[in-house]
Amino acid sequence: MSGIQPRDRQALLAARQRHLGKMLSLSYREPLKIVRGRGAYLYDESGREYLDCVNNVCHVGHCHPRVVAAAANQMAELNTNTRYLHDNIVTYAERLTSTLPNHLSVCFFVNSGSEANDLALRLARNHTGREHLLVLDHAYHGHTAALIDASPYKCNSKGGRGAPPNTHVLSAPDTYRGPYRRGDPDAAIHYADQARDVLAAQEIAAVIAEPAMGCGGQIILPNGYLARLFAHVHGAGGVCIADEVQVGFGRVGSHAWCFETQNVAPDIVTLGKPIGNGHPLGAVVTTPEIADSFNNGMEYFNTFGGNPVSCAIGLEVLQAIEDEGLQRNAHETGSYLLAGLQDLATRHELMGDVRGLGLFIGVELVRDRDTLEPAEREADNVIEGMKARGVLLGTDGPYHNVLKIKPPIVFSRQDADRLLTALDATFSGNTI
Amino acid sequence: MSGIQPRDRQALLAARQRHLGKMLSLSYREPLKIVRGRGAYLYDESGREYLDCVNNVCHVGHCHPRVVAAAANQMAELNTNTRYLHDNIVTYAERLTSTLPNHLSVCFFVNSGSEANDLALRLARNHTGREHLLVLDHAYHGHTAALIDASPYKCNSKGGRGAPPNTHVLSAPDTYRGPYRRGDPDAAIHYADQARDVLAAQEIAAVIAEPAMGCGGQIILPNGYLARLFAHVHGAGGVCIADEVQVGFGRVGSHAWCFETQNVAPDIVTLGKPIGNGHPLGAVVTTPEIADSFNNGMEYFNTFGGNPVSCAIGLEVLQAIEDEGLQRNAHETGSYLLAGLQDLATRHELMGDVRGLGLFIGVELVRDRDTLEPAEREADNVIEGMKARGVLLGTDGPYHNVLKIKPPIVFSRQDADRLLTALDATFSGNTI
Repeated sequence: MSGIQPRDRQALLAARQRHLGKMLSLSYREPLKIVRGRGAYLYDESGREYLDCVNNVCHVGHCHPRVVAAAANQMAELNTNTRYLHDNIVTYAERLTSTLPNHLSVCFFVNSGSEANDLALRLARNHTGREHLLVLDHAYHGHTAALIDASPYKCNSKGGRGAPPNTHVLSAPDTYRGPYRRGDPDAAIHYADQARDVLAAQEIAAVIAEPAMGCGGQIILPNGYLARLFAHVHGAGGVCIADEVQVGFGRVGSHAWCFETQNVAPDIVTLGKPIGNGHPLGAVVTTPEIADSFNNGMEYFNTFGGNPVSCAIGLEVLQAIEDEGLQRNAHETGSYLLAGLQDLATRHELMGDVRGLGLFIGVELVRDRDTLEPAEREADNVIEGMKARGVLLGTDGPYHNVLKIKPPIVFSRQDADRLLTALDATFSGNTI
Repeated sequence: MSGIQPRDRQALLAARQRHLGKMLSLSYREPLKIVRGRGAYLYDESGREYLDCVNNVCHVGHCHPRVVAAAANQMAELNTNTRYLHDNIVTYAERLTSTLPNHLSVCFFVNSGSEANDLALRLARNHTGREHLLVLDHAYHGHTAALIDASPYKCNSKGGRGAPPNTHVLSAPDTYRGPYRRGDPDAAIHYADQARDVLAAQEIAAVIAEPAMGCGGQIILPNGYLARLFAHVHGAGGVCIADEVQVGFGRVGSHAWCFETQNVAPDIVTLGKPIGNGHPLGAVVTTPEIADSFNNGMEYFNTFGGNPVSCAIGLEVLQAIEDEGLQRNAHETGSYLLAGLQDLATRHELMGDVRGLGLFIGVELVRDRDTLEPAEREADNVIEGMKARGVLLGTDGPYHNVLKIKPPIVFSRQDADRLLTALDATFSGNTI
């Protein structure tokens, strides 16, 4: 090792300010120094243990031994690009596509969800010869220039310059706070039909949507929404992109992929975050037709994408999910946790809404259950109170008032109990 | 390991066609299956050894043991995001900036050179409030949508739709084939002054340039070129971006960074390829002023960027370059190889031009030294002939007639001799 001298938190903070810029945010009022991870747990420099309820990247558990071993072995053997034949990339592409509908058979391997979504937009625009996009309000799809423009969470927020003229924003299908709510049996239809006016006025290259919204506030789409929206877009000759970066790989429990809960057949699926358990990896999977359109003479080459190490890691993550029954665990533990949270909500007025699929759960905090006034400050206090109790959570949504729960999917029933007990105490205002 | 069954080349080719799409290109008429790497050597499935003269990613040697160990150790300990404090990212940022001029003190860590260049354009556009770019003809800066538009190598080539109206293309300062040549003592001035008309007509956010051009054909910029171009852009209030993705980290031998050979002070430097010896890693380094402008309320968060594993690897690569004197090796071996190639060129008419800095070398093949008719087919034959002799090379440049030599910088004098001997035999048309 290169002689890294451990420093205390103040010294790290000062050096961070100098060399990483002020915009790189830290969690918590007093940031944590985390030095070790194992399963669903993180450990600070004093050895204090924290239950990680928010890291949706280290999906099969922090530092999963078999993933680490697969990486180390392949790194010691070969790590080069896709211009030579190699077993790993082909085997990985076969295994990954075997989890998806038959029509999604062609993979592009990249290094992040952002690279995946950027490429997905290129594929869709190239295939249709069109430029315009449909996106959902408050959605986030990544940090490249093209994706900031397609992410209302960024371009319509602080520091943003608004969505560009070729990007059309539909209401987030939020049945708790949006214009159409759960009491309305046609809410899904009303939300989806917002696309009709845009499609009548404009030729659309694609719609891009998360099949459950992450940064938008852990929004579970109403039944039938995506099927109707995709039907509108297909009817108008557009391409439908499911962004599974946050919600894929069994997290939603009932299915491997969140778009399956909406019973749709996307033309392009994008993958990131959990795909490599923390290793920089992403993928686009699409149809042979869309891939063939892209084969127009301009090569797509990704220097690191699809290298033997990344593919060995991706394969091992898939295998761990399967061998350890982690999708089933997400389903069972997630259902147990959701029920526990719903029970807590009967006793804590702040918990205005509890919603989720598997281990993708949101708890929306409101000051008033009629006006739905967002309880942003309270949410922040809950996060701090939970940290003091050794449980890591985060907030998201346009009002920063939604507790997001999206732990590594090795999260156990005991972990769920620990989370519920700590939440109950925090909401009760108990001292620690 | 996940039970990957080795397959022969035909089976791999067929599966690749099905699941990776037809646009993912392979080197050589009969593609190689490469299974192992060590130092400057790659090995196929039969154990046959190839001298790798073209992989500029596995910079300190394929599977460098200390880089592999650093990665494996950190992967087993912790791999999470930048929202907690960690020693690795801070130590790495300090070490990396210590190799750069003082004003370049703020780092953004990303997962590829493409992510780095995409972010660099966002930083420059945000800082200046302007949109227009200056780029060099035949340059390649990456595969995101924004970068394809800024890469004439792509957007002005087959399958491209041309540079957009906000992107202004200057002639590549190619003193062998371009409008101003080596005989002209003012060639650098003429090339740089092409920017004047654009700058007079248009407010420019930035110029982005490789300080020696890679895909453009291993072009070494004439002395004084970049200093004059940057002075024009600075004078007009624009930002100067040096794209060191292909040429940084000591490859050019005389200096750590290629922009230093042009005696300029860029406002933004972008890093990729060799930075992690194959691990998906990239970085942007800029001034506090430009970083502060970006801190406008919109967070830049990169899920994998700056994680402890990537930073441990980046640190170990820097340390290996230093401890093993690899920049000096690039200088000495590169100079030896360049002289050897120049000597070969006196005997082989096809070798129209030999140029290079350290271990970044191009040999341009022409059918006629007066007309400079590009010898594309011949270049391809040389590549195949070299492969048959166990030496891996590639071609690049707008006419695909430039042999590119950019090996791992552990390349030894014996390796150089092996390359020279094989080239001599290949150009002589000797049978093997």
